[in-house]
Amino acid sequence: AATFRASEHQHIRYNPLQDEWVLVSAHRMKRPWQGQVEPQLLKTVPRYDPLNPLCPGATRANGEVNPHYDSTFLFDNDFPALQPDAPDPGPSDHPLFRAEAARGVCKVMCFHPWSDVTLPLMSVPEIRAVIDAWASVTEDLGAQYPWVQIFENKGAMMGCSNPHPHCQVWASSFLPDIAQREERSQQNYHSQHGEPLLLEYGRQELLRKERLVLSSEHWLVLVPFWAVWPFQTLLLPRRHVRRLPELTPAERDDLASIMKKLLTKYDNLFETSFPYSMGWHGAPTGLKTGAAYDHWQLHAHYYPPLLRSATVRKFMVGYEMLAQAQRDLTPEQAAERLRALPEVHYCLAKK
Amino acid sequence: AATFRASEHQHIRYNPLQDEWVLVSAHRMKRPWQGQVEPQLLKTVPRYDPLNPLCPGATRANGEVNPHYDSTFLFDNDFPALQPDAPDPGPSDHPLFRAEAARGVCKVMCFHPWSDVTLPLMSVPEIRAVIDAWASVTEDLGAQYPWVQIFENKGAMMGCSNPHPHCQVWASSFLPDIAQREERSQQNYHSQHGEPLLLEYGRQELLRKERLVLSSEHWLVLVPFWAVWPFQTLLLPRRHVRRLPELTPAERDDLASIMKKLLTKYDNLFETSFPYSMGWHGAPTGLKTGAAYDHWQLHAHYYPPLLRSATVRKFMVGYEMLAQAQRDLTPEQAAERLRALPEVHYCLAKK
Ligand SMILES: O=P(O)(O)O[C@H]1O[C@H](CO)[C@@H](O)[C@H](O)[C@H]1O
Ligand SMILES: O=P(O)(O)O[C@H]1O[C@H](CO)[C@@H](O)[C@H](O)[C@H]1O
Repeated sequence: AATFRASEHQHIRYNPLQDEWVLVSAHRMKRPWQGQVEPQLLKTVPRYDPLNPLCPGATRANGEVNPHYDSTFLFDNDFPALQPDAPDPGPSDHPLFRAEAARGVCKVMCFHPWSDVTLPLMSVPEIRAVIDAWASVTEDLGAQYPWVQIFENKGAMMGCSNPHPHCQVWASSFLPDIAQREERSQQNYHSQHGEPLLLEYGRQELLRKERLVLSSEHWLVLVPFWAVWPFQTLLLPRRHVRRLPELTPAERDDLASIMKKLLTKYDNLFETSFPYSMGWHGAPTGLKTGAAYDHWQLHAHYYPPLLRSATVRKFMVGYEMLAQAQRDLTPEQAAERLRALPEVHYCLAKK
Repeated sequence: AATFRASEHQHIRYNPLQDEWVLVSAHRMKRPWQGQVEPQLLKTVPRYDPLNPLCPGATRANGEVNPHYDSTFLFDNDFPALQPDAPDPGPSDHPLFRAEAARGVCKVMCFHPWSDVTLPLMSVPEIRAVIDAWASVTEDLGAQYPWVQIFENKGAMMGCSNPHPHCQVWASSFLPDIAQREERSQQNYHSQHGEPLLLEYGRQELLRKERLVLSSEHWLVLVPFWAVWPFQTLLLPRRHVRRLPELTPAERDDLASIMKKLLTKYDNLFETSFPYSMGWHGAPTGLKTGAAYDHWQLHAHYYPPLLRSATVRKFMVGYEMLAQAQRDLTPEQAAERLRALPEVHYCLAKK
């Protein structure tokens, strides 16, 4: 039998954080692509558009006028999926028909007053302001709600309907599905091994190096061993941190700088404004904050869809929806490509 | 407090088959959509294209020439994600780095010799031939492999790179993630309630009626209580059937007819060739076929992405990727819309 080589021989890998498997079939990159190509980004975005509801001074759907903000700006989503006062569906009459109450709030956070910038094109102090705003919204909404989900959908390909740089914050009265899985896995690992799963994982990746993309005094960026999306990354603090508000000023500055580097590499990969969904996961909050949650380690997931070029994405369809996630290059190959990319943004390098 | 109404008040619902939750926020349909619209299907597909590797008589990537088939045609995928002989990655050196061997085969099945038809435009006997081919490939590959995943990616939006009507069959040496979840849930339900989960579920939906889309002598189509995709459906036999090969001739004819009706309704919904991924789940196969698997009920899932029109889809991004699935209309609303649609295809009605 041939000697196993991950880049040539399909195999499955286990995601211990979310308790899932992925099929890695790196030889699939050889197949020609004749399917859908995504529209190129041709439109240039104006820096200021008075009709864009995310711009300073613009009027939103509910008639409110935005302030002339000059850093970040947080406001209530005008079409929230979660509202604070939804009634309870009441008891279920059958074990196969279970519904439960869901309450919460949805906010939108603008990163910058200009519509024509993105995080990698912002300065480190500007990104630091975003991190501070993330920490404080986690603190505020976390006082009441057990889960505060900060996420950014970047690019039209990721369902983002407004080019102005922004993210969303959805706080809920329940632990969402993926939070529950991460809670369970980290709890189990901690009780078996006596330390947080992701702390040990980060340490191992620092030693093994082959999946590391970036490291700094306080942070690590790596393509996880079990990555599903072609250039998926995991951003981790090096010390044990449970939630965003716990980050020290030095850790926040360092985070701003490593985020800028990662997102610059992402844009440089296919010389495009790289689409992705990203989000933060930290220990549950809310009234149970009293619990220690020592098994939790703060982290951010980046899930970018592009596979081969600025216009050819990975489709998570068919087999992936019905059986199991499948990827077409190894996490080690993805990390190697990301590592090799310059830390200067291609738009700035060309000037 | 207001009285709970599912179409107005957000809530969460539990999927007992796949052990997952979905957030239902039906009021979200009110928000205007300014995001990406999908390209319209403008190209007409030629009935026969000698350069299309799926056509009768065409030459494939590996140099083989297709027969002049006149019904279904099954062949090996030229770029398989699963190959029969991949070596074993060997033992893991750390509990967070687990990889296992994956072996299998990937096949492609053409439904019809013509490129310009789709299942709803095929005759009932032609669809019946597809069902027979599904049953026999399940039997053949199931003799060796524990899981035979039949799935169809329809439409460019679902990553389908060839318009010729076809599906894929991936058989694997492992139970894929979602198969494992369904195995666990059905096993648990059976040992607690003494009957198959989906048999009781189908019976309940027949009584409750509000999520039923179609029913026939042997089959049911419904929008599951826990549906994630806007117009997702579940296709179920009315009697206890574990796998496709067990279907009687009468059940196969009836299945062909209900599939034609469902897919016609789908196309009629937005007057377009409705994109989706679909697939069959039945009891595991392979060497363990000896086991009874009485807790399993055969079923097909249809996952269509369109939400508002032929060009506006639901994006499963951000919150959905990082926290929990979220849907923008209730399953009952979706079922009502599908029920109301004619069973004659809009392309034929206009002629
Ligand atoms: O094999 P195909 O049709 O080229 O590829 C398509 O289906 C596969 C199985 O669902 C996916 O992994 C691919 O991302 C998708 O593009
Ligand atoms: O709220 P938005 O940005 O309009 O909507 C976008 O993000 C949401 C949360 O990830 C998704 O549910 C929507 O499908 C997507 O289009």
